[in-house]
Amino acid sequence: MAGQIDFYFDFSSPYAYLGSHLIEPVAQRHGRDLVWHPFMLGVAMKGERTFPLTQYPMKGDYSRMDFDRTARYHGIPFVMPEAFPKVTLAASRGFLWIDQQDPARAVGFAKRIFAAYFTEGRDIADPVVVTEIAEEAGVNADAFSTAIQETEIKRAFTASVEETVFEKKIFGAPYFIVDGERFWGADRVSQLDEWLARGGW
Amino acid sequence: MAGQIDFYFDFSSPYAYLGSHLIEPVAQRHGRDLVWHPFMLGVAMKGERTFPLTQYPMKGDYSRMDFDRTARYHGIPFVMPEAFPKVTLAASRGFLWIDQQDPARAVGFAKRIFAAYFTEGRDIADPVVVTEIAEEAGVNADAFSTAIQETEIKRAFTASVEETVFEKKIFGAPYFIVDGERFWGADRVSQLDEWLARGGW
Repeated sequence: MAGQIDFYFDFSSPYAYLGSHLIEPVAQRHGRDLVWHPFMLGVAMKGERTFPLTQYPMKGDYSRMDFDRTARYHGIPFVMPEAFPKVTLAASRGFLWIDQQDPARAVGFAKRIFAAYFTEGRDIADPVVVTEIAEEAGVNADAFSTAIQETEIKRAFTASVEETVFEKKIFGAPYFIVDGERFWGADRVSQLDEWLARGGW
Repeated sequence: MAGQIDFYFDFSSPYAYLGSHLIEPVAQRHGRDLVWHPFMLGVAMKGERTFPLTQYPMKGDYSRMDFDRTARYHGIPFVMPEAFPKVTLAASRGFLWIDQQDPARAVGFAKRIFAAYFTEGRDIADPVVVTEIAEEAGVNADAFSTAIQETEIKRAFTASVEETVFEKKIFGAPYFIVDGERFWGADRVSQLDEWLARGGW
């Protein structure tokens, strides 16, 4: 089977949410596995001297408009959360823990986290809310709630973020790597699609 | 006639160069005049706390790759200049002066400036080089060389940049406004095209 598409994202990124909707049919069409990797965009931003998009004086207003217009363009449900951005440690650690046991369920959980934040405005920084969402995704709430507080999973996620940012040099989200080729941004999914169709150019 | 497409750019922006190639057929297809507006991206960057793309530690390398890959994707000639970015005051003032007399010739001059920098690596910060390019575009070299040093044209361009950045709130390039709708980035030309085709969404 052809190589997988690695998908790097932060649960708090609107374009990563949109990108998650756009990449899935592309992966299916080309018979590529899609492998989800949550990370902390804030860690990358420190080194890059970048900020959450909405915090820029002029680009901030434009971005809010563009999130919404791009979502409508693609027919993706989207309501910009009033509280933005969120630190999504609990959700990311939870993803990693579920993924260790059942990768397909972890993807289901990730989709629910994205939808909870970007269509229902739920507080995905709150471990209690994250645990509720895990339960909605068929995960045992008590086991999940305990797991995301354990040192082992915290360390594993920290190591994963450091590898993503400092070794793989991933500075933004969504970020895709397939066949060694890198694509940053929801607006590069169309090039990624064409790249796989043509085998590059 | 339907409203014009305002196209804001800095002569030193690779995506603005690519965007100039992408927007033209779109404007033609929809019967819209395309009005070119050079400005100084550096003025916008100061207030936004942003930097030339290639100066970001990680995004810098990615951007160089993406300029080239995106140019090849669209079949646009492109060679990343070794000296980047450039302060394009002379070219921008020259554009403004030509535009006051002959807007069509000013567009021809703008295209030659872009091509000189992004396909031939010529130094478009140098008034002597800019004057040569003006001559190639059919402009009298002596008159041009004198005009771009005059206080009147300097003041007019400064006022134009201030209006662009501080009143129109344009923070990046390429930036397009049509029918009051704003599109930032070469990768938003496809949405702009669709916006005009559908009358919005």
